[in-house]
Amino acid sequence: MSTFSIRSFADIIEEALQNISFPAKDAPALFAPVKYTLESGGKRIRPILVLATFEALSGKNPAEAVPQALGIELFHNFTLLHDDVMDHAELRRGRPTVHKRWNTNVAILSGDAMLTLANMYMADCDSTRLPQIMRCFNETAIKVYEGQQLDMEFETRSDVSVSQYIKMIELKTSVLLAGACMIGAIMANASQKQAEAMYDYGLNLGLAFQLRDDWLDTYGDPAIFGKCIGGDILNRKKTWLLTTAISEARDETLSIISEDLEDDILIEQVTDLYNRLDIPARCLRQIDNYSGAAVKALEKVEMNPEAMEFFKNLALEASSRSR
Amino acid sequence: MSTFSIRSFADIIEEALQNISFPAKDAPALFAPVKYTLESGGKRIRPILVLATFEALSGKNPAEAVPQALGIELFHNFTLLHDDVMDHAELRRGRPTVHKRWNTNVAILSGDAMLTLANMYMADCDSTRLPQIMRCFNETAIKVYEGQQLDMEFETRSDVSVSQYIKMIELKTSVLLAGACMIGAIMANASQKQAEAMYDYGLNLGLAFQLRDDWLDTYGDPAIFGKCIGGDILNRKKTWLLTTAISEARDETLSIISEDLEDDILIEQVTDLYNRLDIPARCLRQIDNYSGAAVKALEKVEMNPEAMEFFKNLALEASSRSR
Repeated sequence: MSTFSIRSFADIIEEALQNISFPAKDAPALFAPVKYTLESGGKRIRPILVLATFEALSGKNPAEAVPQALGIELFHNFTLLHDDVMDHAELRRGRPTVHKRWNTNVAILSGDAMLTLANMYMADCDSTRLPQIMRCFNETAIKVYEGQQLDMEFETRSDVSVSQYIKMIELKTSVLLAGACMIGAIMANASQKQAEAMYDYGLNLGLAFQLRDDWLDTYGDPAIFGKCIGGDILNRKKTWLLTTAISEARDETLSIISEDLEDDILIEQVTDLYNRLDIPARCLRQIDNYSGAAVKALEKVEMNPEAMEFFKNLALEASSRSR
Repeated sequence: MSTFSIRSFADIIEEALQNISFPAKDAPALFAPVKYTLESGGKRIRPILVLATFEALSGKNPAEAVPQALGIELFHNFTLLHDDVMDHAELRRGRPTVHKRWNTNVAILSGDAMLTLANMYMADCDSTRLPQIMRCFNETAIKVYEGQQLDMEFETRSDVSVSQYIKMIELKTSVLLAGACMIGAIMANASQKQAEAMYDYGLNLGLAFQLRDDWLDTYGDPAIFGKCIGGDILNRKKTWLLTTAISEARDETLSIISEDLEDDILIEQVTDLYNRLDIPARCLRQIDNYSGAAVKALEKVEMNPEAMEFFKNLALEASSRSR
C-alpha cells in the first residue's frame, strides 16, 4: 500500500515506465522514439490521478491500476509527439522533439504505434471492467482531438471568445485529467455518482492547471518557470489573457498584436494592456474558482481523510504553482 | 442471412459506412477528412473477410460482426491516410489525398481520430469476446506499423533480400487480412484451431494479393489496371521483382536503376532485365503458391460448401486479378 503522496505514486509510475516492454520484434526502431519520449520526464499528473483515484475509492494496492495509468501516460505523450509535428515545435522538455531528432515520418508512425500501445495497456484489465474502460478512454481521446482541432482553427481567427477558449482547453487538456480520474474510478468499481464526481474534480483541476499555465507564461518568474516569459504573446496565442483582452478592448488589442514590433516591445505593450484591464488579477481569481470547484466536487466522494487531503492539495498546488 | 457473395457482403459494408456516426460534436471538421476517405471506395476486402469468416464459422447473420468489419476498414483507411502523408502521395483512388485536399496537420489529426474511431467500433461487442478482439486488433496494428517502418527503411537500402521483402509485405499488408479473418472467427466463437487456420488463409491471401500487385505494376494491362505501368520501377520500389533481380544480378540491376535514364528507357531496361531472368513467370508461380497455401489452410476449417467455395474463389481471384 502506498502512502498517499505524489512522490510515492510517481515512483510507481517511473518504475513501470522503465519496465515497459515494446512489442515490435521485427522492426525495433519503431519504438525508439517512444522510449525517448517517455524518458523525457514530465509531471506524470495523469497517471498519478489514475492511481490515486483507484486507491482512494477502492482501498486497494494501486498496482492493480498501473496498466491503465501507463495507458493514460502513453496516450498523453502520443498527443504531445503529434502536436509537436503539427506545431513545428523544436524542443520538448529541453530536448529536441522527435521529428527534429529523427524526422516527420518517424514522428507520425511512432506516434501511431504509441497510441496503439496505449490501447494495449488500457485494455489490460479483467473483462467485467473492460467495456467501460474502453468507452471512457476512446471518448476521452476523441475529445482531446477535438480540442487540438479547435486550437488549430483558433490560430487563424481573431474572434475567439473567452468561452470558446475555455471550451477548447477543456477538450484539449482537462478532459484527459478528468478521464484519468474516471478510469481510476472504474477500475475501483466505484459507483457512477462517485466516478462522475471525480471526473468533475479532474475537469476543474485541468482548467485551473491550464489557466495557471497561461498566467505563468506572462507573469511567471523566469528563474523558476523554466520557459521564457512572453512566449504566448510573441506567438499571438489565444490564451485566456488574450481572448479576454480582445473581448474587452478589441480594436486596441488587435492593433498591438498586428503591428510588427520588436519582441520585447510587443511583450511590454501587451502586458501593459493586460495590466490596465486588470486581467492578471482576474485570471488568478478564475483559477481559484476552478480550483475551488475541484475541491467542491470532492464533497460527493467518500474517501479517507488522507486521500481527501491529497486531492485537495493537488488542486491548491495546480492553482498556485510557479512552474 | 446473406447469400455468400462478395457483392452481398460489400453491400452490407457500404450501407454501414454510410450510416456511420462521427462522435465529434464540438469540432465537426475533425471528421470531414475521415468521411472523405471512406467515400473514396476501395475493394473493402478486409471487412468482407470479417463478415464472411463470421458467417462461415457461426452460421449467423453477419450483421452481428458489422462493428468489427467497420473497425478493420477504418483502421485500414487510417493507415492509408498517414502513409500518404509519409510518402508525399498526391492521389489516392483518383482523388487528392487528404494532406493535399486539406493539409498535413489535418491529415495527421484526422488520421489519429480515425484510429480511435476504429477502436470504438472494434470494442463494440459483448464483454466475453472483447479481450480477445482487443488483443488481436492491437497486435495486428503493431505489426502493420512494423511493416511500414521496414518499408521506409528499405527505401534507402540496396541490400534488401527477397525474404526480407516478403517479411515486410507480410507485416504491412497480409497480417491485416489475416487479422480480419481472425476477428471474424473470434466473433463467431470459433475454436482456436479454426481461428488460426483462417488467420493462415488470410496471411497467404494477402501475400498472393500483394505479389499480384507487384506483377501488375510492371506487367499489367494499362487499360484495365487503372494505374500507369512501371510506377514501381520509376520509384525504384523494392518489390518482389526488384529484390529478386538484385539478388540474382546485383551489379547489373543496381547499375541500371542508379543511372539517370529517361522514364520509358528505364522501364524498358528494367523490364528487359526481369524478362531475361525469367522473373515474371516465377513471380506468377510464387503467387500461385501463396494462393494454393491459402486454399490448403481452408482444409482445417469446417464450413458449408457455399462458404468454402467463396473463400476458394477469393484466393483464385487474388492471384489472377487484372486490377
